[in-house]
Amino acid sequence: MSLLVVGSVALDSVETPFGQKEDVLGGSATYFSTSASFFSPVRVVAVVGEDFPEAHVTFLRGRGIDLEGLTREPGRTFRWKGRYGYELNEAKTLDTQLNVFQSFSPVLPAGYCDSPYVFLGNIHPELQSRVVDQVRNPRLVAADTMNYWIQGCRDALLKTLRRVNLLFVNDAEARQLAGEHNVVKAARAILSMGPERVVIKRGEYGALLFEKDHIFACPAFPLAEVFDPTGAGDTFAGGFMGALATSPGVDGQVLRRAMVMGSVMASFTVEKFSLERLREVTRPEIHARFAEFRKLTHFDDLGPLER
Amino acid sequence: MSLLVVGSVALDSVETPFGQKEDVLGGSATYFSTSASFFSPVRVVAVVGEDFPEAHVTFLRGRGIDLEGLTREPGRTFRWKGRYGYELNEAKTLDTQLNVFQSFSPVLPAGYCDSPYVFLGNIHPELQSRVVDQVRNPRLVAADTMNYWIQGCRDALLKTLRRVNLLFVNDAEARQLAGEHNVVKAARAILSMGPERVVIKRGEYGALLFEKDHIFACPAFPLAEVFDPTGAGDTFAGGFMGALATSPGVDGQVLRRAMVMGSVMASFTVEKFSLERLREVTRPEIHARFAEFRKLTHFDDLGPLER
Repeated sequence: MSLLVVGSVALDSVETPFGQKEDVLGGSATYFSTSASFFSPVRVVAVVGEDFPEAHVTFLRGRGIDLEGLTREPGRTFRWKGRYGYELNEAKTLDTQLNVFQSFSPVLPAGYCDSPYVFLGNIHPELQSRVVDQVRNPRLVAADTMNYWIQGCRDALLKTLRRVNLLFVNDAEARQLAGEHNVVKAARAILSMGPERVVIKRGEYGALLFEKDHIFACPAFPLAEVFDPTGAGDTFAGGFMGALATSPGVDGQVLRRAMVMGSVMASFTVEKFSLERLREVTRPEIHARFAEFRKLTHFDDLGPLER
Repeated sequence: MSLLVVGSVALDSVETPFGQKEDVLGGSATYFSTSASFFSPVRVVAVVGEDFPEAHVTFLRGRGIDLEGLTREPGRTFRWKGRYGYELNEAKTLDTQLNVFQSFSPVLPAGYCDSPYVFLGNIHPELQSRVVDQVRNPRLVAADTMNYWIQGCRDALLKTLRRVNLLFVNDAEARQLAGEHNVVKAARAILSMGPERVVIKRGEYGALLFEKDHIFACPAFPLAEVFDPTGAGDTFAGGFMGALATSPGVDGQVLRRAMVMGSVMASFTVEKFSLERLREVTRPEIHARFAEFRKLTHFDDLGPLER
């Protein structure tokens, strides 16, 4: 079923200990939609400037992504510049130029308003709310957010959260939003703010899915070479939501497989710069890595282990 | 089958944000043997001073632990004092008094020399080697170590590692020992030093088991209340080795279940101060939590997830 994403399409400049790239394809909606496009039809609402290379549009269209909601405005494309150290955990932002993104106010093409699955990328919570206003009877609305909105627009964010079914946050954001250090308590606090589910992303340590009565833990795929973590979180959300949207219902096993598929897709993204690995990854590689996750995590029932 | 542990029996003073305790039962051999005693017969080689409360000896004996190798020497018992912040990740050591432990040189009672499973607690690597000298044809020798020995006695440690089948380390220690930041590369480097297997403990993020061709990831049990992490690593090793020693062979599934049992036991230890929770935990609670770990981590095969 169709999956709507609203977020950024950007040009990133990234430095890691392993190299650097300037003005490469990036943005939350880009990583999300490319990742999700392996599983479900995706619709994008975003904005780019006059300088956005047509080749990137061609790439996204080639992945079968519906770009009716991608508008091109006078001015330059949103740019982000960041640097990672050897830990590769968190980028230091060196520069952010909002450019055309500054006046972005998402308007859904008429054909997008029936989208059953919605992902609100990391934008101002009021804009996220405005997207929800435009969608009719969605099955599931998911959102991402970040420390900047948690600290600066808490009230607007709390309003949005009451209209969201699932929140993706990293562990530091979960702690900040909940005002709780313990991750289980933080998740419970977030569940009391509106979402029925919260996914807490922990980078190289994997991700946790919390529902009222269940927790599911998915590790990150252990990689000897992590090249560039940019976009890992949005790729995770794309694999998760893309997998979810293939299913008519949202039950426990569907959510678990979605968590694993998010982790699978994120594990590819970090293997190269920008979307280079997502561009070339094949369906058999995706399925093989999903199978690897079962080998990585599954174990037999308790045998005669007692004294 | 019998499981030999050589390590410390100590009196700990611990401060956490939730309270503090003075001179409570602690030490690597104590946590290890109590945890393992739920699964396998355990033999302890350690030393205590004249001041060591007889009640603690009675407790350990009551768990069926063989204490022939626990000697009482003139002087005071090994004491450790530490403090944890809200992160509860790492203790700040406030004071260490080796006391009778300073001249500890493990001598195995004759009846211990046929122990098929051996755990070398976190002591000087030369003492660890001396224990291996005394054991005849063990099936599996496992060892723990720490930053202090990695930095200060590297050559002796490397000698010991060549005689060890399995190493337990935390992620910082693995990185330090291997000189590699990436945990997969660090594990591979450690495997090249001798051990066929390495378990990398990552606190609240769980643990990874590395073998030449396999990796197994086990999360930590998500707890809303973590009270005192002291002894979690040794409790993990005790659950792991205790479960392993119930099996005639060391195959993949046995190792996986051992990893989970290590995590199960550690999850109980951190719920209260000292060994308070291990004292009261019941076999049905252990089995129930093991079952919870399957719910926490298992997921179905990939269904029709494709577009």
